[in-house]
Amino acid sequence: MIKKLIEKIQKTDAPIVVGLDPNLSFVPKALLDRAFEEHGETLEGAAEAIWQFNKAIVDTTFDLIPAVKPQIAMYEQFGVPGLVAYKKTVDYCHEKGLLVIGDVKRGDIGSTSASYAKAHIGKIKVGSKEYEPFAEDFCTVNPYLGSDGIDPFVEVCNENDRGIFILVKTSNPSSGEFQDRIIDGKPLYEHVADKVNEWGVSSMDGDYSNVGCVVGATYPEMGAALRKLMPHAYILVPGYGAQGGKGKDLVNFFNKDGLGAIVNSSRGIIAAYKNEQYASFGEENFADASRKAVEDMIKDIREALV
Amino acid sequence: MIKKLIEKIQKTDAPIVVGLDPNLSFVPKALLDRAFEEHGETLEGAAEAIWQFNKAIVDTTFDLIPAVKPQIAMYEQFGVPGLVAYKKTVDYCHEKGLLVIGDVKRGDIGSTSASYAKAHIGKIKVGSKEYEPFAEDFCTVNPYLGSDGIDPFVEVCNENDRGIFILVKTSNPSSGEFQDRIIDGKPLYEHVADKVNEWGVSSMDGDYSNVGCVVGATYPEMGAALRKLMPHAYILVPGYGAQGGKGKDLVNFFNKDGLGAIVNSSRGIIAAYKNEQYASFGEENFADASRKAVEDMIKDIREALV
Repeated sequence: MIKKLIEKIQKTDAPIVVGLDPNLSFVPKALLDRAFEEHGETLEGAAEAIWQFNKAIVDTTFDLIPAVKPQIAMYEQFGVPGLVAYKKTVDYCHEKGLLVIGDVKRGDIGSTSASYAKAHIGKIKVGSKEYEPFAEDFCTVNPYLGSDGIDPFVEVCNENDRGIFILVKTSNPSSGEFQDRIIDGKPLYEHVADKVNEWGVSSMDGDYSNVGCVVGATYPEMGAALRKLMPHAYILVPGYGAQGGKGKDLVNFFNKDGLGAIVNSSRGIIAAYKNEQYASFGEENFADASRKAVEDMIKDIREALV
Repeated sequence: MIKKLIEKIQKTDAPIVVGLDPNLSFVPKALLDRAFEEHGETLEGAAEAIWQFNKAIVDTTFDLIPAVKPQIAMYEQFGVPGLVAYKKTVDYCHEKGLLVIGDVKRGDIGSTSASYAKAHIGKIKVGSKEYEPFAEDFCTVNPYLGSDGIDPFVEVCNENDRGIFILVKTSNPSSGEFQDRIIDGKPLYEHVADKVNEWGVSSMDGDYSNVGCVVGATYPEMGAALRKLMPHAYILVPGYGAQGGKGKDLVNFFNKDGLGAIVNSSRGIIAAYKNEQYASFGEENFADASRKAVEDMIKDIREALV
């Protein structure tokens, strides 16, 4: 699957992913009113609003980008109706030819991780039938439980040609509390990186493994070190834009050939119309503002990589 | 909320929780056939089967126990219909007077953790209305992202009188890969324990905090040390029964007054009829086998605590 992602990145010349992390506060009033009119101020109404919001953004950006990354928490907060909107979003992005990275950060003991892996990137048997419950192409995974929490995901990657991104160094301010602590002369996140290498060996797909990792744009020096430490791991880089990362900070996340990393922006794209820079589009043209923000982000990163 | 849990533990004299982690392979054939007849071999059929299975077990055990702990992965693996069954299970357990610990092991950067917290133990605003999407009483949380991933959960605990259990030392065989690594002279899980103490200060509810922790029954010596390190944290102890823990191994997870820990068993209870020990009940009386397994587990732990 990582090969497919790389092909799409090369085709679009855009090593970026749009984070579909809708909050009701991002949804323009007209769209929100329409959803509430139809479903009331209910979880179903909220779910309809974020689905219509997503759809508009996907419709105006899909030709520019290789992939999207919906953050499932933003859907889960609206309960079951929210998860219906999540699934609709995943399916719709597939229809538009996009790859989907489910940002689910799951991880548990072995047998339970196996269920999460089936849910998100695998298949589940029901009697004589098989289903793909959420059917993302990739998902993110938390490593705190160690190998037996990761192995079931890798197995499912190998069975179904899917991929995972394992949290190594996250973009948030307090990620260092545990991740940066020194063990045998190097930080915990480098120990996790060593394991990412090990876990990825069985899942090579071209020059890279289907087992990638997450390293926050907000820590560019660590990104440079981790790029070298994990030569076969694709790096999913959150934290661009709203969280503070810029194109020039990201150069070291990439290999010399311009591959090896894919940069996510969420709020900076989907709520672009709320930024001063794109305010002239107006609320009613929010999706066009998102398209312009995608173009600007691609330009920023292309220029940095030259 | 921890006070409520303690009251229920004292009333039932049973510091245990039944893990409602249904797999289709646990569901008796007659029940499975009925669900498939109604819904076909679909995700809806699977969800109906596990819901009916749960209901039967709750109906025969609810008077003996203070709480249940559904593992959301077992529902998520059946996609949206599975999550409908999860929600039905949570609601039904509440109707029967049980507290519900959602074993969701979520955790993300701050704003995203806030959404997970709302989803599981909090409220979400939709226009002028408020909803409790999944409405568990407690949920489990992964600490890998540090304080800003935990703080939103603690805030929601304080707003809504709910609780969380933070993963400290998990029950799985490879939990030591990262959790046991030595940092400044002590293992990572003890550093996480120190933080559990800090995080819990603002959420005291009687002698204990609404911020508890998870320590696996499979590591009794670490349990003893962690019990002392976190005097105000209730310990949720998975790994009893099928994973290998026994009553006598668990004594040190408790304080002298018999409080301070609650022990989970999942497969050992809900699939009891598949164990030789309870095979005489027969598949059709699976729920009665579960009741007997609950009684035996309570006896095992009471005797160990004398």
